[in-house]
Amino acid sequence: MKISHIEHIGIAVRNLAEAIRYYEEVLGLTCYAIEEVKDQRVKTAFFKVGQTKIELLESTDPEGPVGKFIEKKGEGIHHLAFAVEGIEESLSVVQEKGIGLIDSTPRRGAEGLDIAFLHPKYTFGVLTEFCENRNNQ
Amino acid sequence: MKISHIEHIGIAVRNLAEAIRYYEEVLGLTCYAIEEVKDQRVKTAFFKVGQTKIELLESTDPEGPVGKFIEKKGEGIHHLAFAVEGIEESLSVVQEKGIGLIDSTPRRGAEGLDIAFLHPKYTFGVLTEFCENRNNQ
Repeated sequence: MKISHIEHIGIAVRNLAEAIRYYEEVLGLTCYAIEEVKDQRVKTAFFKVGQTKIELLESTDPEGPVGKFIEKKGEGIHHLAFAVEGIEESLSVVQEKGIGLIDSTPRRGAEGLDIAFLHPKYTFGVLTEFCENRNNQ
Repeated sequence: MKISHIEHIGIAVRNLAEAIRYYEEVLGLTCYAIEEVKDQRVKTAFFKVGQTKIELLESTDPEGPVGKFIEKKGEGIHHLAFAVEGIEESLSVVQEKGIGLIDSTPRRGAEGLDIAFLHPKYTFGVLTEFCENRNNQ
């Protein structure tokens, strides 16, 4: 189990364009990509802050995971994603230690990363994602 | 306004010892410091993940900010802290752009950093902290 850094922080917002404006015009960050992830029913916008990305998430479906999150908790930080080396092995390790998984095998996420979510019930309320970038391998 | 990286992510937990065990034994991270911040009525535990720290927060007072957060929303990610260059100037810049502040002047936070919080009402639901480390200057 090797975590190298925080790959990104996912933030649920109601209106992507308005939130992008805040991150750019107030905080001075630059949105370098906008991508729809149909599987997750979200439109995403990415900003780089040092080693870590901020991923803004606007739901494209009230019944999707981000739509339901906003309905229940309002806008705010949605998940925390760690860059891991060896995603399948990392999932096995945490599962052996009793952690429930949302995704028992990786699937394709934004930016072409392999991703999988751990269940927040087992991770002290933090929806936790593992990511691995195998695009350049 | 210059943000260099994400200084830390604050996570509210009910029981610091149990949460430390998860971050160490499951995720393989190392807790390098435990510190009580009386001003914020929390006990904190720190982990380094690449450039960014994870700061676990256990409330020492149900009426403190983290105690109230857990009461209302449950355990989970509490705030996002950006490392800025020139904290007073950064606060002025965001205030001029209409962002409400919790702290209009910096105060002393964990690890001896100068810190100030922006109001989540103005930051799309994300309790946002600015931090500057002036200890080595």
